[in-house]
Amino acid sequence: MKAAVLREYHRPLELVERPVPELSQPTDVLVRIGGAGVCATDLHAIEGLMEPAGVTLPRVLGHENAGWVADAGVGVATVAKGDAVLVYPPYSCGLCVACRRGNDMHCVRHEFTGLSVDGGFADYVLVSERSLLKLPAGVEPAAVAPHADAGLTAYHAVRRVAHLAVPGSTAVVLGVGGVGHIALQLVRELGSSTVIAVDTDERRRRLAAELGADEVVDSADGVREATGGRGADIVFDFVGTDRTHADSAAMLARGGTYSVIGYGGTIAIPSGALVVNEHAVVGNLVGTWVDLYELLQLHAAGKITLRTEVHPLEAVNEVLAKLHDGEVTGRAVLVP
Amino acid sequence: MKAAVLREYHRPLELVERPVPELSQPTDVLVRIGGAGVCATDLHAIEGLMEPAGVTLPRVLGHENAGWVADAGVGVATVAKGDAVLVYPPYSCGLCVACRRGNDMHCVRHEFTGLSVDGGFADYVLVSERSLLKLPAGVEPAAVAPHADAGLTAYHAVRRVAHLAVPGSTAVVLGVGGVGHIALQLVRELGSSTVIAVDTDERRRRLAAELGADEVVDSADGVREATGGRGADIVFDFVGTDRTHADSAAMLARGGTYSVIGYGGTIAIPSGALVVNEHAVVGNLVGTWVDLYELLQLHAAGKITLRTEVHPLEAVNEVLAKLHDGEVTGRAVLVP
Amino acid sequence: MKAAVLREYHRPLELVERPVPELSQPTDVLVRIGGAGVCATDLHAIEGLMEPAGVTLPRVLGHENAGWVADAGVGVATVAKGDAVLVYPPYSCGLCVACRRGNDMHCVRHEFTGLSVDGGFADYVLVSERSLLKLPAGVEPAAVAPHADAGLTAYHAVRRVAHLAVPGSTAVVLGVGGVGHIALQLVRELGSSTVIAVDTDERRRRLAAELGADEVVDSADGVREATGGRGADIVFDFVGTDRTHADSAAMLARGGTYSVIGYGGTIAIPSGALVVNEHAVVGNLVGTWVDLYELLQLHAAGKITLRTEVHPLEAVNEVLAKLHDGEVTGRAVLVP
Amino acid sequence: MKAAVLREYHRPLELVERPVPELSQPTDVLVRIGGAGVCATDLHAIEGLMEPAGVTLPRVLGHENAGWVADAGVGVATVAKGDAVLVYPPYSCGLCVACRRGNDMHCVRHEFTGLSVDGGFADYVLVSERSLLKLPAGVEPAAVAPHADAGLTAYHAVRRVAHLAVPGSTAVVLGVGGVGHIALQLVRELGSSTVIAVDTDERRRRLAAELGADEVVDSADGVREATGGRGADIVFDFVGTDRTHADSAAMLARGGTYSVIGYGGTIAIPSGALVVNEHAVVGNLVGTWVDLYELLQLHAAGKITLRTEVHPLEAVNEVLAKLHDGEVTGRAVLVP
Repeated sequence: MKAAVLREYHRPLELVERPVPELSQPTDVLVRIGGAGVCATDLHAIEGLMEPAGVTLPRVLGHENAGWVADAGVGVATVAKGDAVLVYPPYSCGLCVACRRGNDMHCVRHEFTGLSVDGGFADYVLVSERSLLKLPAGVEPAAVAPHADAGLTAYHAVRRVAHLAVPGSTAVVLGVGGVGHIALQLVRELGSSTVIAVDTDERRRRLAAELGADEVVDSADGVREATGGRGADIVFDFVGTDRTHADSAAMLARGGTYSVIGYGGTIAIPSGALVVNEHAVVGNLVGTWVDLYELLQLHAAGKITLRTEVHPLEAVNEVLAKLHDGEVTGRAVLVP
Repeated sequence: MKAAVLREYHRPLELVERPVPELSQPTDVLVRIGGAGVCATDLHAIEGLMEPAGVTLPRVLGHENAGWVADAGVGVATVAKGDAVLVYPPYSCGLCVACRRGNDMHCVRHEFTGLSVDGGFADYVLVSERSLLKLPAGVEPAAVAPHADAGLTAYHAVRRVAHLAVPGSTAVVLGVGGVGHIALQLVRELGSSTVIAVDTDERRRRLAAELGADEVVDSADGVREATGGRGADIVFDFVGTDRTHADSAAMLARGGTYSVIGYGGTIAIPSGALVVNEHAVVGNLVGTWVDLYELLQLHAAGKITLRTEVHPLEAVNEVLAKLHDGEVTGRAVLVP
Repeated sequence: MKAAVLREYHRPLELVERPVPELSQPTDVLVRIGGAGVCATDLHAIEGLMEPAGVTLPRVLGHENAGWVADAGVGVATVAKGDAVLVYPPYSCGLCVACRRGNDMHCVRHEFTGLSVDGGFADYVLVSERSLLKLPAGVEPAAVAPHADAGLTAYHAVRRVAHLAVPGSTAVVLGVGGVGHIALQLVRELGSSTVIAVDTDERRRRLAAELGADEVVDSADGVREATGGRGADIVFDFVGTDRTHADSAAMLARGGTYSVIGYGGTIAIPSGALVVNEHAVVGNLVGTWVDLYELLQLHAAGKITLRTEVHPLEAVNEVLAKLHDGEVTGRAVLVP
Repeated sequence: MKAAVLREYHRPLELVERPVPELSQPTDVLVRIGGAGVCATDLHAIEGLMEPAGVTLPRVLGHENAGWVADAGVGVATVAKGDAVLVYPPYSCGLCVACRRGNDMHCVRHEFTGLSVDGGFADYVLVSERSLLKLPAGVEPAAVAPHADAGLTAYHAVRRVAHLAVPGSTAVVLGVGGVGHIALQLVRELGSSTVIAVDTDERRRRLAAELGADEVVDSADGVREATGGRGADIVFDFVGTDRTHADSAAMLARGGTYSVIGYGGTIAIPSGALVVNEHAVVGNLVGTWVDLYELLQLHAAGKITLRTEVHPLEAVNEVLAKLHDGEVTGRAVLVP
């Protein structure tokens, strides 16, 4: 099969021929890729920054995978050959306390498809039955592949604070990229806040307006203005630089919550301000299988849309370059 | 009446004779002081740091007040002369959205007895009916005065995260002083975590052990050890220096929550660590009237004890000095 | 002023001239009526069934009131003459534990405008400042009057179980009348369930479809069918007869919740079935001031619409007859 | 091996020799029984009432099992031969949506050890790895076997409403038997209510007092009295007859919740009363694996005790007779 392999850091992926992976566990499932989303995390992996997440070389990248079941181990009970499926990227054991609570991403035996094990920039990917979600009728794999990570991350972050998004409150979405453009829709669907989108890029601001943001501004200052100086009750930060960390904390209203999804900088807050304003800061990591299941139901019901552009797997390095340059609006998907 | 007045920053309080305050609103209540707790915030006020909280000079300090109703306006319906009462320190309007949600401390017309208006280091204090809680039968004012702020702050912080203190989890109480020694008991009463107390002072560690801490250690390193390297699911920080902020973040387990009550330093956390570990940081400010009501029920039921030492109001400056030097274990109460 | 008075049970209301009510408390507010909604509870009052709610005769009915401040007592701080306001019907003291928790409708000193005290089928109504909500700019009193009870009741019931309305779940709205047609929209706004509306009346089913129900059926049997036999995760019953109680319990899925708003019959469930299916049954009573505040924000943001028909106050008896005969679709509003 | 088999309804169990069960799935585990609790459900099974739960004949009863791992399939990763374990009675697949939410007892492929498959009134029981919990060091199997169902059921019911058991509230435990005597302790540990125990049996009332009930009464009337007519905020009913259903509903305070665990009768409540009082009725079924895990941590920490009496497996029919006659205080455990 074809596969795009990261063989050396800071180098383009290599398109190679490889044997199709073989089932080894009774619960293994082989998935023929219908589409694989391209994520900023792939850029970080190429830059050598994802070793803490278990990357070793060589590695087939690709963690936003969807396709069809091509083969299944004898112990597999819930999917059959030909089923259209979405691949939940974390591997989880199902037996530890974290798994039993539904927090698969905190599994003590955690792996991550496309980072610690081979992913879906290929014709096939091998995963465990626990990683699969059957697609509702009428949903095409390539159309939902980016939900596996971008959508999941957005859903998890928004769901966790949706009870704060009461009518009369204000929520800010900082960064309307691959994850942010889904989150913006989810804030509307799961909450009742007035939604302000912030992005420095004009195309993304236009996308935000199309997706239903109540207001769209180009900088943090715009938020204070738009809220009459009161600030926002919830700020979702999908960027994660020193600058956005400082801006986000500064634009919070009394009692507000700062939801951190993008990362890279350092959050520095005087504890006096945190206490006097009763602010909260909440980190978010991927999401649970149930998060992805619920997101998929929303997608199938037509309540959210995914902005994608489709490219052949062969163009993987061009697509990565485009993403790096901020030239992807929404999410790019590779099709083998 | 006697009153201890802050007339100039960085100077001892002056004990003066003053007229008893007069009722001016129909809902005003005059309370004869039975006891007034002494708090580190009083030290901050003397140092000139509490102007953001509304302090102007001269000011009678004292925000942990309990006593008996001495007089009440014509509009007062819920207390009568002679009733033993505890004074909830925030003044709240009862009409704004924050008040209607029960969050009196975020009232848009907020005042604070003993900071922005005169307090209880005196024979009498004037408050609004909304600030009062009737004491259950058998509860003496001087015995519960410190609950008005120390207890309330502890209760509010612990209650907000009590749902995380599930059996099998670990909670750390950092600083077993006036607020911390109540919080330690509340973590046990409202939650089911294993409780580790951390204090650098030997007398406070002894107090922690007496109050039921499962483990007592003298430094942050002790927590990692006591948890087999796993860290704590909840850390309550009643100290609030750069050092305790860094220590607290470092001792959190995956998915853990850092509850900030003490303040002074800066919290600095790389967002990458916050996200990968799904940590949360939560600021806490005083508490609601209902928090104080519930705390009082626990006290009356004998489920928590308050460690107090009683001094005459005339000794206020000596007591403040003792507090400043870390020589008060539990809470000091002034009696006029 | 004009007023429609219930002087004798089972008799039409009498339209009489009366003195405009006078302010007696410092927090009293006189409201000139812009519109007053007509509710099935008014029919119950006329039938003599509302004495448990405090009705004594003679009484001016009308508990869904909106208008403009005409006069205000000296202690009133949050509204001024001319302000457009909606009247929250429960009077609450603001001082008891229930009020401090925000549960105004459980106030120990509870009254109810239009039942235990005179209401708004008149030119003016006298209420307390605590009962008022200022209308957002651009919102006309007559257009939102029915929110004061119909909308409030719908919001309260839906909000309490909205966390159960996750994507992939099913919610049933049984009875698409004055309250139900608002609830149907709120289930969509506050939740993410597939929404099935049930009504025996063809006009109401059409209204349900217009308001966005995913499916509309004419009987309980239709629900089992529409869910493939699985049943509904949440059933909101706005009718409340022996029949709808039995139907609702029978159409619940495993783990489902039966939310009871309409009443009149007896709920009879074998405890074995309740336990094996982990069903819950939840009664709902009006709502809190904050519920009404949040609902009003949704209305102002255009997220819900109110289906009303406007009549002159003089037509009150004709409108009551029409309501009694099931000939009102949405809500009727009287304008003086 | 020895086994006590239900071969015919309404007949004593037969003690027979049987082959030790053999592993057939890679995740199967053979457990050597250390103790098996005896439950009223065993009586129901003998009376032929548990066919809806999957009972077919012949069946080895016993669903409260603990012991040591005797053998394990090749796919078992989390326990090893010799480990002391508690057996969670529901079998769950781990893959359906209910399982992924942690609600194992609603698994679509649900089985129940000792009812739909053979149980632990025997020398050995065969279960799936997903059904096991390793015992903390120092905990003996026979000492905790009844937690597998009695304790689990109590924990699940109490945990679900523990957020309502705020200081100042009142909780009633109706029936201080095998499940109730654990629940009583859990109400104290997980909540802060005043706890009133109700039992008609003098020995059970004495047990309730020993286990820390604040008040102990012998009838429903006693509750109204003990609460000054106000009623209880939470009523846990571990009996479940027409009589206790009526009594429980009648003793609820405004806003109160009726938690149903025992069953048998019919709950009949006029919806008018349910609505006006905002009552809730909640059915409870066994519990989740995580519930049992958390309970076990509480047990290991010494926060709850289990009142047991130990008998040899050979005495199974005598023990069942004793249970039937109400002569067991706490829980009986059979040891092979």
